Amino acid sequence: MPRTAYFISDGTGITAETLGRSLLAQFEGVELNLVVKPYIDTLEKAHTLAAIIAQTAERDGARPIVIDTIVDQAIRAIIADAPGFKIDIFSTFLAPLEEELATHSTYTVGRTHAIGRDDIYMHRIDAVHFALDNDDGARTHQYDQADVILVGVSRCGKTPTSLYLALQFGIQAANYPLTEDDLDEDGTLSMPKALAPYRHKLFALTIDPRRLAAIRSERRPNSRYCSMDQCMQELQQAEALFRRYHIPYIDTTRFSIEEISTRMIAETSLTRRFSPR
Amino acid sequence: MPRTAYFISDGTGITAETLGRSLLAQFEGVELNLVVKPYIDTLEKAHTLAAIIAQTAERDGARPIVIDTIVDQAIRAIIADAPGFKIDIFSTFLAPLEEELATHSTYTVGRTHAIGRDDIYMHRIDAVHFALDNDDGARTHQYDQADVILVGVSRCGKTPTSLYLALQFGIQAANYPLTEDDLDEDGTLSMPKALAPYRHKLFALTIDPRRLAAIRSERRPNSRYCSMDQCMQELQQAEALFRRYHIPYIDTTRFSIEEISTRMIAETSLTRRFSPR
Repeated sequence: MPRTAYFISDGTGITAETLGRSLLAQFEGVELNLVVKPYIDTLEKAHTLAAIIAQTAERDGARPIVIDTIVDQAIRAIIADAPGFKIDIFSTFLAPLEEELATHSTYTVGRTHAIGRDDIYMHRIDAVHFALDNDDGARTHQYDQADVILVGVSRCGKTPTSLYLALQFGIQAANYPLTEDDLDEDGTLSMPKALAPYRHKLFALTIDPRRLAAIRSERRPNSRYCSMDQCMQELQQAEALFRRYHIPYIDTTRFSIEEISTRMIAETSLTRRFSPR
Repeated sequence: MPRTAYFISDGTGITAETLGRSLLAQFEGVELNLVVKPYIDTLEKAHTLAAIIAQTAERDGARPIVIDTIVDQAIRAIIADAPGFKIDIFSTFLAPLEEELATHSTYTVGRTHAIGRDDIYMHRIDAVHFALDNDDGARTHQYDQADVILVGVSRCGKTPTSLYLALQFGIQAANYPLTEDDLDEDGTLSMPKALAPYRHKLFALTIDPRRLAAIRSERRPNSRYCSMDQCMQELQQAEALFRRYHIPYIDTTRFSIEEISTRMIAETSLTRRFSPR
């Protein structure tokens, strides 16, 4: 019987879940049911959840792990009474921080993920629409406004990455697919005309040919487009282009969208235009 | 002179930053420069960063707050030697968790945000492409495959929300804009034909008319589309529709995309199809 871990919050639950997953990911062999409980923001909801935790403890034959970021002290007290192994993030760290900063914390719910200022919200929405308008080479005349232009073969991960950059960091990311139209007569890829003036903005993605073939065959099964030969050839041509023009690139086979995006920011001069606070 | 807070990680930095922002958001009056330092994964990078922290301490006249999720003990020791107020998440919580789970943690870098399994990655990518293919009422014949269909007037936040749901949770979210084409002769909105068979999948967004006018006027300045009259009228008609058909709705003026998305999941039977672990 696996044990259960609860990530509990009076807000979105994003902080409790993010931290909880990071901590528990360090225990590879332990089988855990992970349950997210956001918006536990009334005494009633807290009592209901405390009862569920008690039932789970009985069912599992072991007290659940309880990781919470509840700010309200009365609500937190109810959860604390339930039979769980508590990782109480706020009570652990807020008191020492209060001392260090020589001030009291405001104990306000859900401050991080609140919208806050209108201009930040607008910026984020603008970045999402920029990514959509400039997806897949659909337009090239706005590249002067792009913070970065992602290049790579079809289905290597450009679109999800550009959207993640927009949503998380407000970065305006265009993306341009390398296709046979960009091939020279000798079968090499030259720098596409639309990209040439923006070489300093380019960032490339590549991918393992087997993974690419699998992704493409979901879209168009049994096509030339998804054949291993075609995928290998396109990737070889693309990577040769990246090396020739010293375009930095990341292999998306090995990394998640989060990793690709944060590595791009770490390795280039890209700067975030948006932060949750 | 504001103080500085560092969020340091040998991985993406997402956990350190998420937790750090949550904690520091509780100190409203304190002015802080926030600096994210991901991928501190070599002794050399750690020494360089430790030197920067020391310089910052001198410049600020106060030691920086240092919030880290570094797993490697040697790297962590170097950062620990720098003059900072440390919030060491892993060393605080991993030891008690090891005892509770009666096992040793694996101390592996970046486990949370790694891709892990191919099928999860595919699912996430599929959801992003579903959101794009079914954005803005572009198609309606795939609504049987939608987990949720967002409805609302143009520019109320449907597209960013559907993309966030796809990227973070692998949820297949279509979205359908309510326009004048859906108006009856008497000026009321009826249930659009394309949506009628999927009433149980509908979730609506609304927004403050002033905010809507501001967002629209960025796109099409001085148009009828962005006028207060037009925005107010469209929103009144849309909200009347939501009430008439008991479609649950959220006001996006008051909530961030994270809040809208997590509230939708909390309030409906929507379930995540993807989790980072």
